[in-house]
Amino acid sequence: MPRETAAVAVIGLGAMGGPMAKNLLRAGFRVRGYDLSPAACRALAEAGGEPAPSPAAAAREAELLHVVVASADQVEAALFGEDGAVAGLPRGSVVLLHSTVPPRFARDLAARLSSTGHPLLDAPISGGRVRAEAGTLTVMASGPAAAFAAAERALAAIAAKVFRLGEEAGIGSSVKMINQLLAGVHIAAACEAMALAVRAGVDPDRVYEVIRESAGNSWMFENRVPHILARDFTPLSAVDIFVKDLGIVLDAGREWRFPLPLAAAAHQQYLAAAAMGLGRDDDSSVVRVYERLAGIEVRGRRRDEAQGR
Amino acid sequence: MPRETAAVAVIGLGAMGGPMAKNLLRAGFRVRGYDLSPAACRALAEAGGEPAPSPAAAAREAELLHVVVASADQVEAALFGEDGAVAGLPRGSVVLLHSTVPPRFARDLAARLSSTGHPLLDAPISGGRVRAEAGTLTVMASGPAAAFAAAERALAAIAAKVFRLGEEAGIGSSVKMINQLLAGVHIAAACEAMALAVRAGVDPDRVYEVIRESAGNSWMFENRVPHILARDFTPLSAVDIFVKDLGIVLDAGREWRFPLPLAAAAHQQYLAAAAMGLGRDDDSSVVRVYERLAGIEVRGRRRDEAQGR
Repeated sequence: MPRETAAVAVIGLGAMGGPMAKNLLRAGFRVRGYDLSPAACRALAEAGGEPAPSPAAAAREAELLHVVVASADQVEAALFGEDGAVAGLPRGSVVLLHSTVPPRFARDLAARLSSTGHPLLDAPISGGRVRAEAGTLTVMASGPAAAFAAAERALAAIAAKVFRLGEEAGIGSSVKMINQLLAGVHIAAACEAMALAVRAGVDPDRVYEVIRESAGNSWMFENRVPHILARDFTPLSAVDIFVKDLGIVLDAGREWRFPLPLAAAAHQQYLAAAAMGLGRDDDSSVVRVYERLAGIEVRGRRRDEAQGR
Repeated sequence: MPRETAAVAVIGLGAMGGPMAKNLLRAGFRVRGYDLSPAACRALAEAGGEPAPSPAAAAREAELLHVVVASADQVEAALFGEDGAVAGLPRGSVVLLHSTVPPRFARDLAARLSSTGHPLLDAPISGGRVRAEAGTLTVMASGPAAAFAAAERALAAIAAKVFRLGEEAGIGSSVKMINQLLAGVHIAAACEAMALAVRAGVDPDRVYEVIRESAGNSWMFENRVPHILARDFTPLSAVDIFVKDLGIVLDAGREWRFPLPLAAAAHQQYLAAAAMGLGRDDDSSVVRVYERLAGIEVRGRRRDEAQGR
């Protein structure tokens, strides 16, 4: 068992890292955090955590280092850049990589961290901001058994379900990549379908109601269509996330000479939404690509269903 | 209330119509049926129904005429072709159109049947063969209130859920079209994702297990991936069905000048499977397009999960 006052560091206090830090605090951890945004640091302080002036400072006494930044480039900077966390992290402390990165990046990172004496858990997360806040994320992780053991209590504080997928880094990120392929395609399909429904002249509220009970349903359809019907594009997860994550999927396909026509078509729709200036809006904004092209609007009657899940 | 011995006709006794006829028999209806296949007619007789030599003969005394053929062309032939059902059907009897057809076809059909005194329920079904057998289909229907009332007991015998979507024909078929867009894209995405997982070197059984609990899940992913893992491509619903149904979706998009990049990409994958000679195999055979191209196989360890739903 870790000590009650075990110290953890959280690098990246955004939509996912912020709520995760709070849940670690609630579970009794001492949490030092770092984020480029002063507002995110203030929120951590208000929740009882300790904002640090650099990743290295945040990592100084940590037994666990949670990395929850947005991209592989940001992971690189946070760990190995100026005042990077690895320089400050005690030898033997475990790095938990929660960001969605290329599987190859995760594998290479494990090798680099091995040389500094830091085990890596390749531990991407799924569930979005709402489940990050509830502490009920899904973690799809791979890494050494000892690292899982060291991180057990922290993972329990942030996740409802932790999949242990193997000993080697890269497996967790590969499975996350597969999840993102599906999630990205399903959101774009939901937008395409709801826009076509309105173009066909049928009531989008009824379509949502019927599809939820039919074979056309998906987790993302059920979760995102209420945002569309309520015209609430406040980002729970942004268009730019899928520009990046389907980019990772398509880069893997290119490297492996593996055709991915569905993922490629969906990626174009996220790029189209980003081209409209909607990159930082909710990913369900892809519907506005169809709306702008066809001069329609997918608007529901009720506005009380725009709940995340 | 209809009489206990109310007579219904079922035209088309295939994967969907056959089980529906049996459930109507179980509910106490007298069922006359017609199908081009002698085997399908024999199966009806064995279940206690009466095979008829033509659609007109099947319809002769029917209060309800269920049309469960595969396409608009087949509907046209069954109703208005030589010895077509409409010629035999008593005036006032309700036609239930369960086939997936273009919304425009359903609207036109309602107008034509109105001139012969036959109300139409535009009543497509969702759920696949397994739920047809269980009598738990979803019906997405539109038509006159009196027609719903006349068909109420029969619909209860075949469906767990009947959505009443409006008074006008075409609405039911439009909502079914939206469902098929999503279902078709989701199956193709499931195949693409599982194939990429194997190419990435991760265990497809574990991927299935993780995705089922993650945001990448869909009704179709959960239902079809077990067929793939078990290498069981016995058709519960065939590749050719989505060649047709996504064709309906794309024809509507073309007519309305409405872009559907996801549906179009998925349709190409069903065409690719059909080109491989797999048109009559289960629609999850789309995975074999990726497999053949990349020289891989998505095979699970366990073979006991290939249950339809």
